[in-house]
Amino acid sequence: MVMQFDHLWSANVGRMKKSIIRELLKLTQKPEIISFAGGLPDPKLFPYSDIQQCMNAVLENNGAMALQYGTTEGDVRLRKELVKRYNETEGLSINDGNILITTSSQQGLDFCGRVFVNPGDVVFCELPSYLGGLNAFSASGADLHGIEMDENGMSSVKLDEAINSTIQACKKPKFIYVVPDFQNPAGLTMGEQRRREILEVAYKYGIPVIEDSPYRDLRFEGKAQPMFQKLDTRNMVITLGTFSKVLSPGFRLGWVIAHPYWIDKFVTIKQVADLCSAAILQMTVAEYFVRGYYEKNLRVIIEKYREKRDCMLDALEKYMPAGVKWVKPEGGLFLMITMPEHIDSEKLFVKAIEKNVAFVIGHAFFCNDTGHNTMRLNFSFSTMEDNVEGIRRLAESIKEMM
Amino acid sequence: MVMQFDHLWSANVGRMKKSIIRELLKLTQKPEIISFAGGLPDPKLFPYSDIQQCMNAVLENNGAMALQYGTTEGDVRLRKELVKRYNETEGLSINDGNILITTSSQQGLDFCGRVFVNPGDVVFCELPSYLGGLNAFSASGADLHGIEMDENGMSSVKLDEAINSTIQACKKPKFIYVVPDFQNPAGLTMGEQRRREILEVAYKYGIPVIEDSPYRDLRFEGKAQPMFQKLDTRNMVITLGTFSKVLSPGFRLGWVIAHPYWIDKFVTIKQVADLCSAAILQMTVAEYFVRGYYEKNLRVIIEKYREKRDCMLDALEKYMPAGVKWVKPEGGLFLMITMPEHIDSEKLFVKAIEKNVAFVIGHAFFCNDTGHNTMRLNFSFSTMEDNVEGIRRLAESIKEMM
Repeated sequence: MVMQFDHLWSANVGRMKKSIIRELLKLTQKPEIISFAGGLPDPKLFPYSDIQQCMNAVLENNGAMALQYGTTEGDVRLRKELVKRYNETEGLSINDGNILITTSSQQGLDFCGRVFVNPGDVVFCELPSYLGGLNAFSASGADLHGIEMDENGMSSVKLDEAINSTIQACKKPKFIYVVPDFQNPAGLTMGEQRRREILEVAYKYGIPVIEDSPYRDLRFEGKAQPMFQKLDTRNMVITLGTFSKVLSPGFRLGWVIAHPYWIDKFVTIKQVADLCSAAILQMTVAEYFVRGYYEKNLRVIIEKYREKRDCMLDALEKYMPAGVKWVKPEGGLFLMITMPEHIDSEKLFVKAIEKNVAFVIGHAFFCNDTGHNTMRLNFSFSTMEDNVEGIRRLAESIKEMM
Repeated sequence: MVMQFDHLWSANVGRMKKSIIRELLKLTQKPEIISFAGGLPDPKLFPYSDIQQCMNAVLENNGAMALQYGTTEGDVRLRKELVKRYNETEGLSINDGNILITTSSQQGLDFCGRVFVNPGDVVFCELPSYLGGLNAFSASGADLHGIEMDENGMSSVKLDEAINSTIQACKKPKFIYVVPDFQNPAGLTMGEQRRREILEVAYKYGIPVIEDSPYRDLRFEGKAQPMFQKLDTRNMVITLGTFSKVLSPGFRLGWVIAHPYWIDKFVTIKQVADLCSAAILQMTVAEYFVRGYYEKNLRVIIEKYREKRDCMLDALEKYMPAGVKWVKPEGGLFLMITMPEHIDSEKLFVKAIEKNVAFVIGHAFFCNDTGHNTMRLNFSFSTMEDNVEGIRRLAESIKEMM
């Protein structure tokens, strides 16, 4: 039976794209393929026994609350643990009224689109930027304006110009989206001075900065740059966090930090979206923090991911032909490769798959249809051996196209 | 610091209301209050030990999968268990391509709004209807058109007329929203003949029926009416389900059943909304099904909720003054009280709170601003003793207003 009801879909549907990454991932599921394509944590580093202990403690001591509906804002104990950690380690001065627990930070990104964007409104993002964010904003009808980056991150001068032109063109600028630490996909970290400049631009035009910060705790070396949330003096920063990279993506838990003025609307939309996040998982994470497991396991992960990054960087040095460039990320899960202009990473992808190695075509992350000669590599998921062997195969594929 | 950025909010924000129920619930948290206001399962009936066993089994046998990202469609084993159960107990003939796991059935409702509704499009619902659904559709800009019910449910004649007038008025009808079994808030169940008539209207105008069915398994007595999904011969029914009422709301897991034509777009929006639902919880529920715990616990819940309903009905008979009416629900969690026209349940609410008993003002469920003399009572959460004592107090409050 042929279904012909396309006239029933909303305008949202026309704006939504299936994630290229998730579609590509389906092609890369074969066990013989070394995949640098996903953004998956190393499952060997999941703290299985710690999680199990916490979960059992929650069910045994507080089961009625764990299995019942919770508040939309999120488990109070978990919010207090996050507050404590942010205030101690990042120098923030927030309280639990500044935090909303979300069902993954993707939900936080979706909410940013839904509460701010009317179709045609302009959102400013990095070139390249995180695809899950871009897709969420596009689904709400955002006109994405990509701002070029240098080694310090998004250009504040170009951002200022772009917002100014937007206003001149009678369009509404809505927010500035940045992934300041170990950016996905570029691997770059934005310097403190640049952060201050971006904030000044935000203040000048009266629009918020969305600080998407999923990897911040995964710093392998070097000095942490202050969070936008820390530098902000005018309550114009909305920070998104997640437990997916440092605890478990299977929990689907993230959070939003912002002034209650912003949080209030996020709470309202969460009531529409899913009422509240899973109490049992929130309480398990709270217990995990209280027991000190978070810091303990974070140290293990940082150690391992540093080793994995290093062996990928060594392999890049060893195997890649001249003309191929990359940035050494100080943390996170990703790095980006830039090849000579004439090499199209979509064509390379086909070749690479033949050699049983996969990546994400960089093009997907550039909202202005550039970046065809780039690709994103994940170094956290595969083994060290596979990181080396995968890069060797990838280098071979590139050489064949040089 | 005064925040003045209301010009930045999207049109969505203007359309969103905080759930009246959740706001009221905050008033009714005092321990001395007997609350019939929530829609909470009885926490004494949560299958604590069964859940704990399943969760430990999942973490021990399949932890790497449980803590990792899952597919957007949902855990295959859980979908297969749902398929099996629906095909066996409801006579459907679906497969796992017909099911998407959602983060609560509220997410399914939100998706219905987002994939179908452009601002101004018309959605047809029962008078009264479930507030969480109405709020979700309104947030997408739906113009809600409430259809009167008789003892068999939504009037198919009035539905037909309403859709016809909508088209005459050059507005787009998008879908028909029904809660056919033990409806929230009315407690009514739609008869088979009426279901067939509603389906015919849906076919006539080429719009889908959203069958929201959170309580279907909680039938205390009488013969089950066939599901819309079962009666449908043209793939025009989208069914929403949830584990919140028969297992645990703290899991935030629901599902959508529909032809892949519809499912495909729900999957796309789920990638934007939260990528996937929590693998660990999905796998725990799958294990719970495989072990036969679902049917076992369902029997216990049905038994207890029947007793609780019965003692509330007995108390209503005993205490309520003449002129107060209610329907005896054959299952579910709710019943609705209709008082004489001149009694406003908002005023009654204040009086009732003074006597330490709470309910939801029925008005909230009527999208056409009627129902001021109605209220919704939940009989699943409080103890049997409180069900009786609460009704006694409520009857006193009503008598004072007669």
